[in-house]
Parts: sequence; C-alpha cells; structure tokens
Amino acid sequence: MYTQNTTLPETLRHRRQKLAELIDFPAILWSGGSSPRNFPANTFPYRANSHFLYFAGISLQNAAIRLEGGNLQLFIDDPHPSSALWHGETPTREEIAARIGADDARPMAELADYLENAATLSVQDAATWTQQTQLLDRWILPKNQPEGIDLDLAKAIVSLRLTHDAAALVELRKAAAVSVQAHKAGMAATPKAKLEAEVRAAMEAVIMGHNMTTAYTSIVTVHGEVLHNGHYYHSLQPGDLLLADVGAETETGWAADITRTWPISGKFSSTQRDIYDIVLAAHDACIEQIAPGVEYADIHLLAATAIAEGLVDLGILQGKPEDLVKMDLHALFFPHGIGHLLGLDVHDMEDLGDVAGYDEGRKRSSRFGLSYLRLNRPLHPGMLVTIEPGFYQVPAILNDPKIRSQYQYLVNWERLEQFADVRGIRIEDDVLVTESGSEVLTAALPTQASAIEDLLEFPKLSQNHD
Amino acid sequence: MYTQNTTLPETLRHRRQKLAELIDFPAILWSGGSSPRNFPANTFPYRANSHFLYFAGISLQNAAIRLEGGNLQLFIDDPHPSSALWHGETPTREEIAARIGADDARPMAELADYLENAATLSVQDAATWTQQTQLLDRWILPKNQPEGIDLDLAKAIVSLRLTHDAAALVELRKAAAVSVQAHKAGMAATPKAKLEAEVRAAMEAVIMGHNMTTAYTSIVTVHGEVLHNGHYYHSLQPGDLLLADVGAETETGWAADITRTWPISGKFSSTQRDIYDIVLAAHDACIEQIAPGVEYADIHLLAATAIAEGLVDLGILQGKPEDLVKMDLHALFFPHGIGHLLGLDVHDMEDLGDVAGYDEGRKRSSRFGLSYLRLNRPLHPGMLVTIEPGFYQVPAILNDPKIRSQYQYLVNWERLEQFADVRGIRIEDDVLVTESGSEVLTAALPTQASAIEDLLEFPKLSQNHD
Repeated sequence: MYTQNTTLPETLRHRRQKLAELIDFPAILWSGGSSPRNFPANTFPYRANSHFLYFAGISLQNAAIRLEGGNLQLFIDDPHPSSALWHGETPTREEIAARIGADDARPMAELADYLENAATLSVQDAATWTQQTQLLDRWILPKNQPEGIDLDLAKAIVSLRLTHDAAALVELRKAAAVSVQAHKAGMAATPKAKLEAEVRAAMEAVIMGHNMTTAYTSIVTVHGEVLHNGHYYHSLQPGDLLLADVGAETETGWAADITRTWPISGKFSSTQRDIYDIVLAAHDACIEQIAPGVEYADIHLLAATAIAEGLVDLGILQGKPEDLVKMDLHALFFPHGIGHLLGLDVHDMEDLGDVAGYDEGRKRSSRFGLSYLRLNRPLHPGMLVTIEPGFYQVPAILNDPKIRSQYQYLVNWERLEQFADVRGIRIEDDVLVTESGSEVLTAALPTQASAIEDLLEFPKLSQNHD
Repeated sequence: MYTQNTTLPETLRHRRQKLAELIDFPAILWSGGSSPRNFPANTFPYRANSHFLYFAGISLQNAAIRLEGGNLQLFIDDPHPSSALWHGETPTREEIAARIGADDARPMAELADYLENAATLSVQDAATWTQQTQLLDRWILPKNQPEGIDLDLAKAIVSLRLTHDAAALVELRKAAAVSVQAHKAGMAATPKAKLEAEVRAAMEAVIMGHNMTTAYTSIVTVHGEVLHNGHYYHSLQPGDLLLADVGAETETGWAADITRTWPISGKFSSTQRDIYDIVLAAHDACIEQIAPGVEYADIHLLAATAIAEGLVDLGILQGKPEDLVKMDLHALFFPHGIGHLLGLDVHDMEDLGDVAGYDEGRKRSSRFGLSYLRLNRPLHPGMLVTIEPGFYQVPAILNDPKIRSQYQYLVNWERLEQFADVRGIRIEDDVLVTESGSEVLTAALPTQASAIEDLLEFPKLSQNHD
C-alpha cells in the first residue's frame, strides 16, 4: 500500500484516516507522564501510552492528541524556560507539530475546549488518569474496561493495531534484530558467568547499547519452571538449563519477545535434549501452520498435541495424544498459551483486557489447558504473534496430590523422574502472518539444540584466554 | 554501638526502639506496590518505599508494618495458591515475620483494626496511596507534605535516617564498590564505543551483573551541560568529554552516586585539563573540610569560592573570588548545589520535601547561587553526603542577554571562548562524616586527570586487538 520510505506524517495520516472510517466521534489520546519511583523527582524511565504512540509516532510526555475525521490536533506545553538548565533545549510545540504532521497545535490548557463527545482510553499513570477523569467528567481508570464510546474507540483501534503497516514493521524488525543479538550475547557470556544476573546483564547491555529498552521484565533463570521469574540471584550450575525470555523495545515503542533455553555446561544432557526436541518440534509445527485464515486457538491445540505426542514417545504420558489433550494432560507440563499478539506492547493491547486478544463474541475457556490462551482469533496478514511452546516441571502442579491421583494412570511418574534435570524449557519466536503464510522475524537466532550449543563460547583448547 | 555482625532483626529492633523514643503514637508504613508501565501486568521494576525498607529491612510488596513502642507488626497476605505457577514458591507470612523479627504478623485485611491514632507517610504508587487515604480517612498523597502527626513522624524518621548505622553502612559500601566498578567499565568501554548508549550499557551491565539496580536514571552524555540529561543517542567525537553520573542501589535499597568526566580521545585537551583541575581542586578542598560540626552550606560556598578562584586564575572571571561568589558569579558555571544526603534514596528523604535537607527553621535561599542547595544542616558523624562540584557552559545561562550585560565586566567572554571544548565537567564522590573527619566511600575510583586517562583502555601498540 505504501513503502518503507513513507514519512512519519504520511504514516500517521494514513492511520488516522483508517480510524476515521470506523468512528464518527473525536478521540483524545493522552501520552501519560512519568511514574515516580522512591520520590517524585526520581522517576521510572518514561514510557508513553501505546495508543498515543500509534497515532503520534514519537514519545512525548504530558501531551495529548485529538483525532477527528482524519485531522490531528496536538496539545502540549512549551518547555518552561528554566527547564533548559536541567533538560537542555527541547523542541517547541510547533517543531513537534511539524515533525508529526499535526494540523493544529495548542497548549494543554486549551484541551478543555475540545472535549465534547470525545472518547478516550486510560493511560497507566495516576496523574494523567486523574486528569482524564476530571476533564471528561467520567471515571477513566486503567483497571476499568472501557464502556460506551470509549469501548467503540477501543474496538476501532484494535482493528487497526491488529495488523501492522510498513512503518510498524520497520520498527518491529529492528526490535527483533537487536533482541537476537542480545540472546547471542547471553549465550556467549554464559560460560564465564557465575550468576543469572551476569547473563541478564550481558543481554540487556546489547539492548541498552542500541539505545533501546527492554519491552518487559527479562526472565533469565535456571528455574524456568517459574513462568514469570523476575529474580536473577541464582548461581549457575553445570547441569542447569538457563531459560532467557528477553526482548527489546525501540525508541518509538515497538517490541520483540524471544525465549531460548540453553545448557550452562555447553551441552544438553540426553534427557534435556529429548525434551528440548519435543518443544522444538511443537514450535516448528506451529510456525509451519501459520497462515491467513487459520485459527490461533488451533495453533495452540497443535502445540499441545505435539507436546503430548512427544511425551508419549518418551514414555512419560500414556495414551493417544489427541485424547490426552482433550483431558488437558499437556497442560501439566505446558500450562500457558502458545503465544499472544505482539506490537507496541509485548502482550499487544492487553490494557484493553481481551478486546484485542479475543474475537467479538469469544470468551476465555475455563478449561485448565486453555484458560491462559491470550489470543483467540483467526489470523490475518500483518498480524504479529509469538509462538512459544514450553515444557515445565512446576512443583505446584506436579506435586498436587489431587492431580497425581487424577492422572495416576496417564502419567508414568517413575519415567518422569528420569527427566529431573529439565525444570523448564521454552522456545519463542515472533511470527508475522503474511499473504502466503508466515515470516519468522526472529529467525536469525537458531533454535536447533546443536546450533545453540555452538553459540556458547567455551574456551577452545587451541586458543589462549585470560 | 553494635558490630557489622548484628543480625537483621537486631538492626531493625534497634531502629524502632530509637523511633519509639521520639514518638508516642503508632506509625504504619506501607511498602507500596508495583507501578504499571504500558499495561497492568507489565510493570516497572518494583521498588519498595524507603521508609518501609528502613524499618522492614527487606523488599516486600503490598505489605505494611506497624511500629509502636518498639514493637513490629507485619501485615501481608500469603501468596495466592495459583501464584506458585507464575512466581514460584514465595515465603509465607510467618517465614517473613521470622526473618525480620516481627512481634506479630497478620493478613492485610486486619490492618483496618490497628489504625487508631496512627501516623503514616505517603508511598509513590497510586493503588497504595489510595489505600492509605481510604483507611486513614485523610488525604495521603505523595505530592502533599505531611501534616500533624504525619509531620511528627517524618521528623522522627529524618532524625534517625540522617545518620547511618552499621548495617546501613555495610550496604552503602557495597553500592559504592559496585558503582566504582561500573565507572571503570565505562572508561574501559569508551575507546571502542560509538554512542553514549554503549558506554551507559557497559556501566549498567556491571550493576545489573551484581544483581543490583541503578539508584537513579543514569546520565552518560557528551552534553554534560544539560544537568539531568537522560538521553544516550549522541555519537562520541574525539574532542568531547563524556560525563557519567551513575550509581548502584543494593537489593535492600541503599544507593551510591558517582560522577566522573573523561575525554573520549583518551587525553584531556589543555583547556579541558585546566577546567578539570579547577573542579578537582574544589572537590578536594570540600572533602578536606568535611567534619562533624561543619555547616554543609559552608562547604558549598567553599566550592563556589574555589571555582571562582580557579576561573580568575585562568582569566575567565575578573575580581576577588569572595566578591564574585557574593555576586553569584560562580553560579554562571556551577548552578547547582555542592551535593545532598545519600542513603536509601539518592537524594535521601527528598519525598519529604526539605524536612530532611534543611535543619529546623531553615529555608531555601532565593539567591541564584544558593537556591538549588539541597542540604543545609550542620554535619554529624554517620551522615553520608555527596560532594559534586562542576563546571558547565549552559547556553540558556551564558547566552542570556540580561546575564551577559549584567556581568559584562566580570566575565572575560573572549577568554571564555577559548574553553569551548568544555561543555560540562562534574566530579562526584560519596563522603561519610566520621568522628574524626570524613571517609570517602568511593575513593577507589581515581579523580586525578592522569589517573582517569590511564583507565581509558586504548589499544597499546605492543598488543594485538581484534
């Protein structure tokens, strides 16, 4: 439709024209402000609201945009004169307006004159949602799901952001490329590292060195069975697997999300390799199936079936894979969904609850094996999703007496004990749905066990190392 | 009073016994909760409130402690059973209570029964200050200064936290040591780096690799004249100076704060070296003077005088240094204060406004050369302060026509032009007031220009580098 040489104003105009086709009321999107850490002047790194970023194109603070009929109004205050001392010369309102192609630009105080019949979506910081609530005279809270015209706006934005335009893909490819480098650096740093924290540091340094940030709290852990493990204090032991789920976010907010799992010792044990290859087979089978029209929930079930099949082959599960999946046996070891939308947010548009993830009229399943599925829609060209099958031995699940008795004849618990050195494995890539099938944006990072082993930089006998 | 082998429960008991000597009402301190980034589940790295950390000793989330008469009550909910899947096994309420030596431990819901006559201090995240406000039935907001018994509590806590006990000093020394390593890594990385971002990454990787975090947004910039420069996108040019203000924070929240300025090329130019040595002379003179009983504001004036003196010697300023300082001439080039308190916050207790920084009855000066001074108290043994003189050519100040005409005979503007390659220099160390004078906790990092040059790892001709 347009090329990668499209200018920012053109990209943004195209996005808001598409929005104008879907709603007949104005939309006001706030950027948000910074969130304080331990005292007001010591803030967390600022992150603008994703809906704002989509239509404003650049990160601004304490700003708002108003979109109506394809027009863009910018509301932002010029920097206070004294701010030059502390923050340097910053662009004026008019300079920002020119850069993003705004049709009109005004101080924040004038936003009050442009509120009539306007829809909005909540930002995350309290100072801004307080302002949204006061100005619009209705509760706009991050924990509330949008209602009325706000919900209509949410649905319209979702329909745009579900598929990525060329400008978005340029950024998403950048995030993917840097994340690939970060994972390679993590693998290279592992042989000399003593702590999880050191590997994390090597990975995030690559992201930071490219003037990007992490898109989410990195997981770099020898306890991959803890799904959202945010600790890095464990020491690395030779028999451990290290699970690293680390992704970059570009300066304008676009994310990547990659997981790899590698052996601390440089070589997978045979049991680790057996399970790794099952997860990889599931990963490859899912990616193979991704194409327009395919239901993402079916991709999830495909992964579940592939994992069940592999575990039957290893003698850990007993029965027919399809039957085992119907009984949620796979979820004992693969208790999360196969993936999620990826874009400006790592779980794209999750601020809107399931409006983005679940197609109109669909709801989360209450089944143990399906309830964590974050995406349930047919795939369309331009959608970017993660594919991230995994195998985990979660004590809270596998040691649950109810589960052990319920599944006593379907799991060979003795056989499972032989795989005690596999606590958690996940392999995650970012897959773009294309007209003809799919493209893996993170394909430059190997997935094969032997290729991973080659990336672990153990000293070669023929070389001198300090 | 006690040794470094004091256990955590003993340290905490000692702190709250001292508090009990100062107030006759109960204090409830909330830990706070995590702040959302772009959607609720994607949070910024959690940081507990500093007052909570001081009396609870460890980072807890969604918890509160109640202190009365030297007793410690802990309020926290046991983890939800399903949290084991996502967050792993976490300690129970009773385990946490034992670790910190709580006299009593209860679920959060029971806090409502223990509110009578209790004082508190606001945390930074909205979910928690909303809870504080609702439970205590008065506005507890981070932007409001405490009043009534809350102000009494603030003053009591300030009097404790102003001087550091042995347990705090153990942590502060750890933070200082890792920050020193980070700066050395930044210097070592400079010769091969092309962007500010790469040097920042090398520095923060050291901090992260020690499983610590940065205590504040790092400043790593060739535009040191922008005092709070939070950008890292500039390329490094051979004639530039790089100013790096980077400090670590330990897992229990204790901070370091170090600045060094080094030449990208590996060698200071003669003009850079001239100014550097002036800033260093001010730095050394201030540290020399630090001792119990000395007024910190006098240290600031000493720095101002030393800088004025140096600039007179270089022919940039004209007049007697003492007179120039009275006219705030130093502030044209050194527009901030000589430093601040350091502890659990990088600007310690700045959440309380100037309650900590300014002694009872003292207020900020309106003088240009003094208004940014964050600390105005007599020094006592156990206080930790930064000493951070600087020289900056801030366009917003030096190009101001009013300033140029007001000071036309006191500044030799032509001579100043010869120093155009000095945009910003700062040298900052963390100085502990001792019984006999002072101890520089960050002394392991050199300050001498020649020693800094030695730390910049340029390839030696005799070695092979890739």
